[in-house]
Amino acid sequence: MKDMYDVVIIGSGPAGLSASIYAKRAGLRAVTLEANPMSGGQVLNTYEVDNYPGLPGIGGFELGMKFREHGDKLGCEFQTASVLSVNRIPAAEMKAASYEEEESGFIIHTDQGELRSKTILAAMGASHAKLGVPGEEELAGMGVSYCATCDGAFFRGKTVAVVGGGDVAVEDAVFLARSCEKVYLIHRRNELRAAAVLQREVLALPNVEILWDTVVEEIEGEEQVESIGIKNVKTQKKASLPVAGVFVAVGIIPASGILNELVKCDQRGYVLAGEDCASSVPGVFAAGDIRKKQLRQIVTAVADGANAVTSILEYLSSEQG
Amino acid sequence: MKDMYDVVIIGSGPAGLSASIYAKRAGLRAVTLEANPMSGGQVLNTYEVDNYPGLPGIGGFELGMKFREHGDKLGCEFQTASVLSVNRIPAAEMKAASYEEEESGFIIHTDQGELRSKTILAAMGASHAKLGVPGEEELAGMGVSYCATCDGAFFRGKTVAVVGGGDVAVEDAVFLARSCEKVYLIHRRNELRAAAVLQREVLALPNVEILWDTVVEEIEGEEQVESIGIKNVKTQKKASLPVAGVFVAVGIIPASGILNELVKCDQRGYVLAGEDCASSVPGVFAAGDIRKKQLRQIVTAVADGANAVTSILEYLSSEQG
Repeated sequence: MKDMYDVVIIGSGPAGLSASIYAKRAGLRAVTLEANPMSGGQVLNTYEVDNYPGLPGIGGFELGMKFREHGDKLGCEFQTASVLSVNRIPAAEMKAASYEEEESGFIIHTDQGELRSKTILAAMGASHAKLGVPGEEELAGMGVSYCATCDGAFFRGKTVAVVGGGDVAVEDAVFLARSCEKVYLIHRRNELRAAAVLQREVLALPNVEILWDTVVEEIEGEEQVESIGIKNVKTQKKASLPVAGVFVAVGIIPASGILNELVKCDQRGYVLAGEDCASSVPGVFAAGDIRKKQLRQIVTAVADGANAVTSILEYLSSEQG
Repeated sequence: MKDMYDVVIIGSGPAGLSASIYAKRAGLRAVTLEANPMSGGQVLNTYEVDNYPGLPGIGGFELGMKFREHGDKLGCEFQTASVLSVNRIPAAEMKAASYEEEESGFIIHTDQGELRSKTILAAMGASHAKLGVPGEEELAGMGVSYCATCDGAFFRGKTVAVVGGGDVAVEDAVFLARSCEKVYLIHRRNELRAAAVLQREVLALPNVEILWDTVVEEIEGEEQVESIGIKNVKTQKKASLPVAGVFVAVGIIPASGILNELVKCDQRGYVLAGEDCASSVPGVFAAGDIRKKQLRQIVTAVADGANAVTSILEYLSSEQG
């Protein structure tokens, strides 16, 4: 079929855009689908990015734009479309279209119509669960953060709060305690869910104070976070806690829904794929925050994009060879 | 010891500089050692880089400068020094310095003196073996390239030569055949060393011509590569072949010499370490081109730097926990 892509890249955050660039430069017939009106993914909503080497202190919105402009400049094909489902092309249809027997392919159903492709690159990313309290949205990027590794350095010497009780929350508290004057770890229960070794570590830190049985009801501040309204759920006692930053670590949700039935994911929904980005299904690859991995950062997302295209080239060669 | 670093990063190419940035932002006591007068590694000698997302078509020298400036701006510590050897600190000395029993550390001997550190990040990179023929050095970056993935896109629709007979050479020829009009694969023997599947693939491509028993004697051109002087080693017949680019793929040499006896390397000298960059020795990590991995690119190097620091933070926590 002449309308068959080599790869359909779903998502145009750092992973998808890096893959677009690498696919174009490799001469692949590729299209990148983006559900939102703008490319960039989570980067777009980041106030400042200071850990993408070569562009210190760049605004997240500006970096998202630069990524997309790079793709546009190289002539990468983009389409604004929401993917509804991804399925294998039925074997009978492949045969009717006089494909080689061993070849396979995928149909991508979108709100703008159907696409066909030899391979799929899932780069839909992930989103951070929100607290859903007043002030959270208004002050996002102005003291409210969902990533301590990304934003912690902006709070050196200051007092911050981490909200959550799992591994990420405790890791964030430990990470922030290295450079912040004081870290409140606010957890709605009276015990942490985090791994025992992490618990021991955080409990031993003199500048981390754990507020048990406590929820955040409000985030306050004019232009920047100034304080949070907290409540002890056992005593119902309320208080206002002066902090310069709030790190929300109450969960992350990989956007893998449309792939759940096609490829193997872990319990939390991350696509199981190694550094080569190959999923459990030949021809389906996963790059960026959607993939199960150690560290979700812009740098690891762009690396995934490149690694995925390398694996896709190998896959296409072996299919045709 | 108060003069004990958390991490000594050896090398300041993309991997080392990314690690410097991540280490600084994480509050680690880190120093980055660079043997050369300038940071940037292989990037410095690249004419144009078009696959580092966000900075399309940037000069390699400029990108290397930007990386270093990013580190300087964050206050990362750099030292110009050649590392001569890396050894464990003897247990007796650790004890004498009243360290915890389970702690360990390393002595880094350099031409500027000794350093001590809890961990080592090896980011010394790799270098490409040269042909050693007239014109190669003069036209490097002006048509002479050591990386098809990096530079292939600049030769779209043109005729190029790949020199070598191993996996990389054949992969390069296949990669370039997608976008170049014609690819000569020049090999000094009468059979390829590359994997059988790769050989089948390249032999099936109509626009790849293999020149057996042939060596390159000279690379010619005024400001850009215009042709190469070749010789058949069996017939001794010489010829001039018009090409716009020469991709040299006669081997890559990881700069892992000083670590050979400390950590496990593969036969070719690459440090054995996964995506988490942890080597066979606790406390020693490897990032960038020196690590055994699928794809050696700027994007994968900067990802390694970030992953390595994450692993180092975990290692330091567990050591102190």
